[in-house]
Amino acid sequence: MNVGIKRKETRPVNLGGVQIGGGAPVVVQSMTCTDTRDVKSTVKQIKKLEDAGCEVVRVAVASRDAASALKNIKKKIKIPLIADIHFSDRLAIDAIEAGADGIRINPGNLPPEKIKKITKAAKSNNVVIRIGINSGSLEKDILMKYGKPSAEALVESATKNISLLEDLGFTAIKVSLKSSDVITTIKAYQMISRKMDYPLHLGLTEAGSVINAAIKSSISLGILLCDGIGDTIRVSVTGDPLLELPIAYGILRALNIRRVGPDIISCPTCGRCEVDLLKLSKEVERKLSGIRDYFKVAIMGCVVNGPGEAAEADIGIAGGKGMGFLFKKGKRIKKIREDEFIPALLDEIHLMIENKEK
Amino acid sequence: MNVGIKRKETRPVNLGGVQIGGGAPVVVQSMTCTDTRDVKSTVKQIKKLEDAGCEVVRVAVASRDAASALKNIKKKIKIPLIADIHFSDRLAIDAIEAGADGIRINPGNLPPEKIKKITKAAKSNNVVIRIGINSGSLEKDILMKYGKPSAEALVESATKNISLLEDLGFTAIKVSLKSSDVITTIKAYQMISRKMDYPLHLGLTEAGSVINAAIKSSISLGILLCDGIGDTIRVSVTGDPLLELPIAYGILRALNIRRVGPDIISCPTCGRCEVDLLKLSKEVERKLSGIRDYFKVAIMGCVVNGPGEAAEADIGIAGGKGMGFLFKKGKRIKKIREDEFIPALLDEIHLMIENKEK
Repeated sequence: MNVGIKRKETRPVNLGGVQIGGGAPVVVQSMTCTDTRDVKSTVKQIKKLEDAGCEVVRVAVASRDAASALKNIKKKIKIPLIADIHFSDRLAIDAIEAGADGIRINPGNLPPEKIKKITKAAKSNNVVIRIGINSGSLEKDILMKYGKPSAEALVESATKNISLLEDLGFTAIKVSLKSSDVITTIKAYQMISRKMDYPLHLGLTEAGSVINAAIKSSISLGILLCDGIGDTIRVSVTGDPLLELPIAYGILRALNIRRVGPDIISCPTCGRCEVDLLKLSKEVERKLSGIRDYFKVAIMGCVVNGPGEAAEADIGIAGGKGMGFLFKKGKRIKKIREDEFIPALLDEIHLMIENKEK
Repeated sequence: MNVGIKRKETRPVNLGGVQIGGGAPVVVQSMTCTDTRDVKSTVKQIKKLEDAGCEVVRVAVASRDAASALKNIKKKIKIPLIADIHFSDRLAIDAIEAGADGIRINPGNLPPEKIKKITKAAKSNNVVIRIGINSGSLEKDILMKYGKPSAEALVESATKNISLLEDLGFTAIKVSLKSSDVITTIKAYQMISRKMDYPLHLGLTEAGSVINAAIKSSISLGILLCDGIGDTIRVSVTGDPLLELPIAYGILRALNIRRVGPDIISCPTCGRCEVDLLKLSKEVERKLSGIRDYFKVAIMGCVVNGPGEAAEADIGIAGGKGMGFLFKKGKRIKKIREDEFIPALLDEIHLMIENKEK
């Protein structure tokens, strides 16, 4: 799956059957926004996330009822389940006993004594711990020392807590250092990556609405992944977590790290465009939204770059006045009318997918 | 305006009063999608683009009527106007005579003899030329030599055409090497930037719908800008060009290169969230959409990261159950009800902007 960048070698951890780090493909995560106690709604959301390509899911565990709900959630889903824990060692231990595959702890609100208890429970149950540092909730003493949640401050918090777990002989560790600031996020991960070889969970926190989240996550995760850093990623979006997965896979696809889902190339349209390109490209995007196979589709509006781009794609349309040329693997195969664009493209795409599966 | 990254030194060019390169702030461009012959619609779209922060605008010139329309368009707009030229030296010269501030030529469809004629006209009229290489329309001989529109191929086309212009004593040059592929775009600009010091116009071509365009442009432009490369940028989006500007400014803001418009931090919401954060953040985003001042607003849903993020922002809300705390410049100033969140935030923001202007 890894077709591009040389990735930094990290230790593998086994998270409920999914390998993270150690050369495994970069794993895509998401998090539910349902009330975890509501098993039905939570499972429903996780099922949708699974269908959209989510490979590991995290749920908030803010009460003992939420922790005990994990047992029933776990039975009904296919992907590993992580409990997101703040403040309470009791909830972490409950979640581990309820069958969570991993625990995310935030050292900013869990003192060392509580972390030790959680680690012992995780160790006896083969549960992975993510040390999840966050710029919004750093330990008070570290925040005082650095004056703000800088990259250095995030790294100090992570390093200190890694040692705490290692002292207990625990190494099934993942680490994240999320900041809401793009540059701090990049610096923090670059620094920690030079210091240790535990797998890194990349994310930019509190990234905002879908466009802002796409911008900030693409820059920060893009730069880190280009550096070979990152074993699992989560794109945070304010709103429906289903919006996170196309962004995550879009980043991985753009960098040739994982080729999941079609790459749709379409021109911005300009005064030269003679077909309804926006409608066309939206329609194609919608029709292809469930497909996990990778291929390149070009939908182009005029003769300037149309034939060139269409010829570089696996399948392409170069539009002209009410008509266009259909291209396949670099060859112009047919002249078609504008109303035939979508059916012709889809026919060829389905044929391509069928042939691949054979 | 440049608060972050050390930028590569380039030669300045004067594009109708706007400096590009030579240490000037990174200029944000867009392109109309109207029929350029339709002066009324084109001017209307440019006015909207100006209001949204567009600093240079490009229009397609595909006919002599389009070229002569430039004269009337130019009279009614405030920002420099660039004519996008393919195939025809006649149209380029018409556009120059009609008052275009800059010309974008595509050497892929203009043979050297035509480029020479255009260059002479540009020289006598003080018009800037962008040598606009595009992966979809590379010169046939270069495409044959490299087999595909690789970074090396794009750079060879640019280098060859820069020499052509320099041989005529012309140096009011900008250069772009756009590919629809993220990695090719990054490599091509990195290569050309080491070879010459003309200002670079960054862009990833045929980027697709708004989310895909945000992802691909943020990665490629983000990495290049982080490297100090890029003097002017255009984000291509299939659809309304107004969608391009928030992405362009979002990229520049995330990298601390230009601080235009508010930075909105909001959490992804999870099972802990007790306020309607999506509605809140959408509403705040909508209300702040016209504002060009920079400040950081945090809209957070719970006690985990809420107080920390709100305290780091210029103005912030950390929500709880039906209530929340209002933060200003790191200080908690008020406890408010959920229905007071938006008016309280907006009051404080308007106060902050007024105080800045004084």
